[in-house]
Amino acid sequence: MATTESDICAVGEEVVAAWNTHDMSRFSHLFCEDADFVNVYGSWWTGRERIEAEHVSTHATVFRRSRLSAKEMRVRFLSPQVVSLHMLWELTGLALPSGQGLPDRKGILVYVMVKEAGRWRIAVGQNTDIVPAPT
Amino acid sequence: MATTESDICAVGEEVVAAWNTHDMSRFSHLFCEDADFVNVYGSWWTGRERIEAEHVSTHATVFRRSRLSAKEMRVRFLSPQVVSLHMLWELTGLALPSGQGLPDRKGILVYVMVKEAGRWRIAVGQNTDIVPAPT
Repeated sequence: MATTESDICAVGEEVVAAWNTHDMSRFSHLFCEDADFVNVYGSWWTGRERIEAEHVSTHATVFRRSRLSAKEMRVRFLSPQVVSLHMLWELTGLALPSGQGLPDRKGILVYVMVKEAGRWRIAVGQNTDIVPAPT
Repeated sequence: MATTESDICAVGEEVVAAWNTHDMSRFSHLFCEDADFVNVYGSWWTGRERIEAEHVSTHATVFRRSRLSAKEMRVRFLSPQVVSLHMLWELTGLALPSGQGLPDRKGILVYVMVKEAGRWRIAVGQNTDIVPAPT
């Protein structure tokens, strides 16, 4: 069965669903065992275990009640075995542990996926906040 | 001939060399015709022409005398036809058109490359500044 764009977008939708249930094991299993992920601060994490641990930490604090939504997804087939997904996202419900709210955020994620045992998983990911460029 | 890590790092080194000579045509031809690139502000540019034009603009101003250096490169083979390159970089010599200097920057780039007519080119790239994560 040929992979369709919608098969790849389904992984993006599952990322969003896992984020919004704050189930970081579900989230991390969308990544390969040895995945590389770079977050919006340029922190580079290698391995599913590390990616999960870092997200468990933030989902216990600032992301605890956060809600991620995908505003646009675009799929690119790089080879029969590799695809990329760009996701424009918005994040609301951010708050400090004190309860003080933080501004909503927008950003863009790229996920590069490979097929492992019949399932598309994220091998390489990078996330960047969308902010006004200085003029 | 099998592709080696050093073949891929050579593309990264060529990005750095093109940047430092401020030759944005040389720079943009390291990208596929239909490449996607996301810059550190989350601006998403599609196509070599757009990527070149945006860089011509910044290399006429803030990046005019800037100097990029690659501090670390790591290659990942995603399939026989697709590789990724992570590059930790530093950028110095930034200045406003008035001449006023700007702080040096550090960041991390990911390039996903495909082989086109025997040459590895960047199909998907994303760049993120490395900044302290809020605590």
